[in-house]
Amino acid sequence: MKLADRIKNLGTETAFAVGAEAAVFASKGNKVYPFHLGDLNIATPQNVVDASLEAIKDGKTGYCPNAGVPSLREAIAEDINKSHGMDYAMENVIIQPGGKPVIGKFILALMNPGDEVLYPNPGYPIYESQIQFNGGVAVPYSYKEGPDGFLLDIDSIEKKITDKTKLLIFNDFQNPMAAEASVEELKKIAALAIKHNLFVLCDEAYFDMRYSGKSKSLASLPGMKERCVLLYTFSKKFAMTGWRLGAAIAPKELAVILGKLNTNDESCSNHFVQYGALAGLTGDQSPVKAIVEELRKRRDKGYEILNSIKGFKCFKPETTFYLFPNVTEAMNNLGIRTYDEFRVTALEKTGVSFCTRLHFGSELPGETNRYVRFAYSGINIPEMEEGLAKLKAFIEK
Amino acid sequence: MKLADRIKNLGTETAFAVGAEAAVFASKGNKVYPFHLGDLNIATPQNVVDASLEAIKDGKTGYCPNAGVPSLREAIAEDINKSHGMDYAMENVIIQPGGKPVIGKFILALMNPGDEVLYPNPGYPIYESQIQFNGGVAVPYSYKEGPDGFLLDIDSIEKKITDKTKLLIFNDFQNPMAAEASVEELKKIAALAIKHNLFVLCDEAYFDMRYSGKSKSLASLPGMKERCVLLYTFSKKFAMTGWRLGAAIAPKELAVILGKLNTNDESCSNHFVQYGALAGLTGDQSPVKAIVEELRKRRDKGYEILNSIKGFKCFKPETTFYLFPNVTEAMNNLGIRTYDEFRVTALEKTGVSFCTRLHFGSELPGETNRYVRFAYSGINIPEMEEGLAKLKAFIEK
Repeated sequence: MKLADRIKNLGTETAFAVGAEAAVFASKGNKVYPFHLGDLNIATPQNVVDASLEAIKDGKTGYCPNAGVPSLREAIAEDINKSHGMDYAMENVIIQPGGKPVIGKFILALMNPGDEVLYPNPGYPIYESQIQFNGGVAVPYSYKEGPDGFLLDIDSIEKKITDKTKLLIFNDFQNPMAAEASVEELKKIAALAIKHNLFVLCDEAYFDMRYSGKSKSLASLPGMKERCVLLYTFSKKFAMTGWRLGAAIAPKELAVILGKLNTNDESCSNHFVQYGALAGLTGDQSPVKAIVEELRKRRDKGYEILNSIKGFKCFKPETTFYLFPNVTEAMNNLGIRTYDEFRVTALEKTGVSFCTRLHFGSELPGETNRYVRFAYSGINIPEMEEGLAKLKAFIEK
Repeated sequence: MKLADRIKNLGTETAFAVGAEAAVFASKGNKVYPFHLGDLNIATPQNVVDASLEAIKDGKTGYCPNAGVPSLREAIAEDINKSHGMDYAMENVIIQPGGKPVIGKFILALMNPGDEVLYPNPGYPIYESQIQFNGGVAVPYSYKEGPDGFLLDIDSIEKKITDKTKLLIFNDFQNPMAAEASVEELKKIAALAIKHNLFVLCDEAYFDMRYSGKSKSLASLPGMKERCVLLYTFSKKFAMTGWRLGAAIAPKELAVILGKLNTNDESCSNHFVQYGALAGLTGDQSPVKAIVEELRKRRDKGYEILNSIKGFKCFKPETTFYLFPNVTEAMNNLGIRTYDEFRVTALEKTGVSFCTRLHFGSELPGETNRYVRFAYSGINIPEMEEGLAKLKAFIEK
């Protein structure tokens, strides 16, 4: 069998291998504390479940339009208009089987082979994979530590822009760093995008996952709506990761193309699930608030313990469900040189399973600090306390 | 906005436009008889619904592995082994959000730009679209009328094979012709694939939709398993089109790549739906038989009336849910020259809505006969009788 040449450029999420290793460790009778998952162990709101079942009974088991159920497209436009202060219409919203398909379709629709695409590193690894798989040049930009959280390294972004740069992937409320741009940073990014005529993917998977303050979208800045595609997902806010439902919000001309890609790739997203999502979006919001409240408690607990570990330095982010401590000193104290040794040793000694910076891209030149990611979306507080106490004891031994 | 160059090669399913036109006609207060849909108006079996709901209650609302739920992969392998007389394992089965994603992923994994790919015309239009969108050369092959049904034009296939031909797309139990290859034809196709080292997509979406006899798979012939990818879907057999669930069955080395494409494109298919499908596959088969029985009655009725229309000549296929009458004489009798005029006139005069041969590819050189497609999956027998009686009266007026 001769695979196509493009397959050698196909990346993956190495984080899945961490889960597999943890499962093997657990299968030997060990207790695992799962901080590696970007998944939720919280039930989907009952009104979403009920409305999905009603839709099945109502015969919504056949195909729906490639762009999705019109009433859901409309509800998403309204939801975004309210949260973003914008004016999208139904025609801008193309339903997708999850947020992830927006990444590939954005790139397919707008990037030619050889085009350069700016993407965050550390960042969600599928950006780099999809850029390279489709023949583009993936150009990483980075973040740096500020006083209260990670800051975009905007100078480094501008320096990397060439006349081949066509696209910018921007993941505010960022995975894995939980970084959030200030309005000033957003303005600088917008100015760069306009000056260099870049189209922007605003991956806003965590836009609504926040504990204080209010999210602001890059797309809401003047001159940006026409050059932005929003990645929207039901996965986090409604604890619907396994339901696979999201949307691309794009300028109308591009939205038509994204719908045509749907026709080619998967016909449409699950029909009845869209009615479940509609109920989630337009119905009682108390289940959604309860999800955020639960995650806030976990964040507080995780921050408190991680930051108390000698050699760990951790910010307290107001968004996402990730903590990304600087563990440089702890690794040095333990005499551990590689990320993988740190991760595997921690798992084997304590059962605490997490991803490292390397699961979100290769280290960049000059990078000396070490970071790991703790996701608190898939673990309850008693287990967090138990696991992190073991980790603390191991690190400080 | 500058779209990527590849977008100009992106095709679509023009059949959707027929549905849209029918909807406009209906919205003006007219009765429409929908024969244009490749969708089912039959409920999904209750055991599938129940098991899906149970899975939701059981917390199967988070991500599952990219390749799918292991027990479902195993059950599909067993199902295929039984129906095909083969020996697939779980590792060969990669769950997909529908059958359609198998088409694009097969091409992405195995076709380089410039490679030639043989595909059926008339045929499912996404083949041609995905080949061209991904930079390949789409080379159509055709069928001809035999005494009892459409026959593969195998000579014409062989003549079109060059040293650039890498892939063959083979849709036995074919849409739109409902053609089915004999064992002799399958042997000839297999010999060609082996001789010319072609990899084959066996689109078997309708493998289990049959009214007599037994389906035989090209992949089951000696030397073929290692060069075939099967497209498997729950859409037809379980009336689950809108649930979006299918699978690719491939040699293990290729299956790993298809799973990696899943990770990049959509993470995984809907988690709880896979438990519904598992119940459908392993539980009581009487709902599945009832679906086929209903479709058999519709086939009989559709065949009877269509074949009675002056200037229509219609085969009685044992598979699929399509009838593909030759309407050359009827069009001539009416003095209608173009497919679109015939289709639109029939809709406006009778309310009967159908697709024509042109919705399944461009006419090939030398093609003189005219065909249209009647799908009987989305219309009940009383409406079939009423609509086709009107059509008959119009044609024979």
